Amino acid sequence: MTAIVQCIPIYAEPPGLHDNSADVERLKRAVAEKTRSALLTVPLAQVTTVSGHFRQVKFSGAAVVNEREGRMELVDVLPEVPAFLPAMALDLGTTHLEATLVDLLTGTCLARANKENSQISCGDDILSRIHYAGRGNGLDELHDKIIATINDLACELASAAGVIVDQVRALSVSGNPTMVHLFLHLDPFYMCREPYIPVINAPDSCLAAELGLVISSSAPVVILPSVGSYFGGDLISGILSSGLDQSEQTCMLIDVGTNAEVVLGNSEWLIACAGAAGPALEGGVASMGMRAGPGAIEHVRIDPSTGETSFRTIDNQPARGICGSGIIDLVAELYLAQVIDLRGKFRPGAAPGLFQAADGTYGYRVVAAEHCADGKPVEVSQVDLDALMRSKAAMYAILSTLVGQVGLEFSDLAHIYVAGAFGRHIDPRKAVTLGMLPDLPLSVYEPVGNSSLAGAQQVLLHASSRERCRAIMQKITYVELNVNQEFMMRFSGSKFIPHTDRTLFPSVPVF
Amino acid sequence: MTAIVQCIPIYAEPPGLHDNSADVERLKRAVAEKTRSALLTVPLAQVTTVSGHFRQVKFSGAAVVNEREGRMELVDVLPEVPAFLPAMALDLGTTHLEATLVDLLTGTCLARANKENSQISCGDDILSRIHYAGRGNGLDELHDKIIATINDLACELASAAGVIVDQVRALSVSGNPTMVHLFLHLDPFYMCREPYIPVINAPDSCLAAELGLVISSSAPVVILPSVGSYFGGDLISGILSSGLDQSEQTCMLIDVGTNAEVVLGNSEWLIACAGAAGPALEGGVASMGMRAGPGAIEHVRIDPSTGETSFRTIDNQPARGICGSGIIDLVAELYLAQVIDLRGKFRPGAAPGLFQAADGTYGYRVVAAEHCADGKPVEVSQVDLDALMRSKAAMYAILSTLVGQVGLEFSDLAHIYVAGAFGRHIDPRKAVTLGMLPDLPLSVYEPVGNSSLAGAQQVLLHASSRERCRAIMQKITYVELNVNQEFMMRFSGSKFIPHTDRTLFPSVPVF
Repeated sequence: MTAIVQCIPIYAEPPGLHDNSADVERLKRAVAEKTRSALLTVPLAQVTTVSGHFRQVKFSGAAVVNEREGRMELVDVLPEVPAFLPAMALDLGTTHLEATLVDLLTGTCLARANKENSQISCGDDILSRIHYAGRGNGLDELHDKIIATINDLACELASAAGVIVDQVRALSVSGNPTMVHLFLHLDPFYMCREPYIPVINAPDSCLAAELGLVISSSAPVVILPSVGSYFGGDLISGILSSGLDQSEQTCMLIDVGTNAEVVLGNSEWLIACAGAAGPALEGGVASMGMRAGPGAIEHVRIDPSTGETSFRTIDNQPARGICGSGIIDLVAELYLAQVIDLRGKFRPGAAPGLFQAADGTYGYRVVAAEHCADGKPVEVSQVDLDALMRSKAAMYAILSTLVGQVGLEFSDLAHIYVAGAFGRHIDPRKAVTLGMLPDLPLSVYEPVGNSSLAGAQQVLLHASSRERCRAIMQKITYVELNVNQEFMMRFSGSKFIPHTDRTLFPSVPVF
Repeated sequence: MTAIVQCIPIYAEPPGLHDNSADVERLKRAVAEKTRSALLTVPLAQVTTVSGHFRQVKFSGAAVVNEREGRMELVDVLPEVPAFLPAMALDLGTTHLEATLVDLLTGTCLARANKENSQISCGDDILSRIHYAGRGNGLDELHDKIIATINDLACELASAAGVIVDQVRALSVSGNPTMVHLFLHLDPFYMCREPYIPVINAPDSCLAAELGLVISSSAPVVILPSVGSYFGGDLISGILSSGLDQSEQTCMLIDVGTNAEVVLGNSEWLIACAGAAGPALEGGVASMGMRAGPGAIEHVRIDPSTGETSFRTIDNQPARGICGSGIIDLVAELYLAQVIDLRGKFRPGAAPGLFQAADGTYGYRVVAAEHCADGKPVEVSQVDLDALMRSKAAMYAILSTLVGQVGLEFSDLAHIYVAGAFGRHIDPRKAVTLGMLPDLPLSVYEPVGNSSLAGAQQVLLHASSRERCRAIMQKITYVELNVNQEFMMRFSGSKFIPHTDRTLFPSVPVF
């Protein structure tokens, strides 16, 4: 383990007439004895702190050394190696930020916290933020907001771990390219205009003070690199934490957010694409849709003989809505109970939850009003079902196009890693029933949690992970689906439950 | 020639859907094609400028790349390689600053200027400045003053060369350790207290913006390193520009300022020392002493038969005083005309310039009042002579101790380089007559001008010179004379004209 910041015990002879070399040179020599690293710099802004502390500790203590782009930078001297050396890993999401405080000495997690992205007041999604940045001092405002949110998170983490926030010695950030641009105060203008070019893909590390962060001013800020405008550091993080780039067997990583982002590969090659399969799955489209959180229905069961609906909410709170995994469960159960047909349309007929609205369209009541948190029933309409059908078709089309691109079959995949809240809550059996995920043994599917955050932690802790980031960035091939004819064909074939080609889903019952 | 800043012509394909890598990565790729350097960073503060200019020039132009501690840092993009790429070399003296603007593309000097150090209002010499820095916000004040003086100089140079000051792309600084500390806003407190330890000997380069300089904000600021508290970057500069560290033959470099600083060596080894031989020679002690400048008497001739005194002043201005070389000339002539004896004492007797003061002591009038600028005669007293005798004795003792330390004789020296105004104005024959410099063929003595400034120019222009600085710093051995018994012995023997051991000076007449 070679953490991004190291604390190196040092011992130096006090100066005397026989050795009148300067404080900083004496210190560099003491560090070099321990690290065998020849090139060690001290930034001018740290010289007074470094030499002052070195004298305070009477020339023996512990040197704090940053690794920046392969070189070593000495930034502080402590009386001794502390009990822990905290650093912050951040998943910088468009909607939510999630962060951990990790100890760089041991790799243990000291605290975890999350917060809504306060930029939401300037626009819900990436595109509206890019437009906002282009107006007046919009970029300043967006930058200030995200820095404020991160500072709040940092204070919260520090207080939970019982450390002083300016003792947080590093920050790693994993996010989509737009969020990274706003964080670094870079104009995302060209990212939403053909040919969609970011200012930067792989920013060199900077120091916390340059960004107005309240953690240690000399903390290095490491950004996970991106590829193009759409394949962000969050996904590079996912590859890193799932180990896709080191796997002998070919595996797949699926990350569902606003877009579905998919990577396929092994230690030899990596291929990736992204497509708009997400909204319905993330809970953004269905009228009762919500993100996976307390009160969200995450599992639904419909007794095929009685049509009775049972469900489970997150944290067992009264139902407020239905999250992505809940919708998938529901629609799969509706299909298995024959309440909907293979086109995803309600079948008029007897079913306890089915009802007909005033306009003649059908709907399905999952939870009656009296059992819900807000006194409003949780229902899905035909419109919601149609949106889900498009999403699931897009998802399967994306996966099968990507696998087809490299001449493989789904059965060649050793693992399919499913990231994020979607991966944590989804029941792969139900997704297979719908024809959203391929019909493989369920053991192939593996939830990997917030892999964006996990990757951010890894780059804090391991030099090898930092090197892998660059290697992944160089190696990955991005497939543009918008101009892909095969994708469009596969999309049409996937608009049925489970698929027009039923031989692809032998485990799904036919009615 | 690998200058500290390079301007590299680049050509990149404009972005398109087939290649959507980011601006900065596209630019880095274009530079890497030309430099074969893998590691190229862009500081966060420059990312917006760099990418903006890269788009303005339509992806083809010239990249401005700094070299910093062996790594390459991209800081700007220009439409094309400009007519010249100006950088400033600075000799940062306690009393005076001297600077040149050099073109990094060709090495030619574009302008030259000098200015009084405005810190003089806070103290005349190094020691009083160190004390001043320790009181209240004295350090801030000294730092601000020196930055202001340098900014004035930079503007003057830029205007003389017809360039805009923020187009000055680099700065190199050669100065004594105290001046360098004040320039970098580092506390010199411990430098005047045993064991005399500076904060730093070899600062890593910083950027002009960090110091409040008005040259290009991304200009690297390179500092010539020092050894200990007394052997400054100005002397490393001298070694560099005289080539002492690369010479096959053993040579010596003498730099006389407030101290006499001497280096002896060749390509194999370097040994140095400093001693208080300077004041009388620099013109700071004699009652009529002055620095070498207009109106200073620099040469004196006394006709041995008539005792008539003739003289020459700098710029042929009416006499105002006498500078170091003038005093040496005068005292040598006084000795040859037998107005003083071998102890440097006036001999009562007939000599046109000799006079007896009211207190009975003797003095010598070099120029009568009516020929002087201020209507005051230029005279030297016995006290002045005694001071000069101590200085000349110290100088010879320093030189002979240093040569003796390595078991050599003066006759082993191929060249003796004499730096600064002292070297430019001194007549070595007279210094030999006094026994201040060893009795060697006059061709051995070589004036080298402002070698501090010359070295500062070299590090701007040549990577090899920057590497040599570090090598010199590692290689040099510093001899402490204050605790050297042999030095004290040699000092006593040198208190006569030319020396107690007359066989050392065969060319000097005996009376």
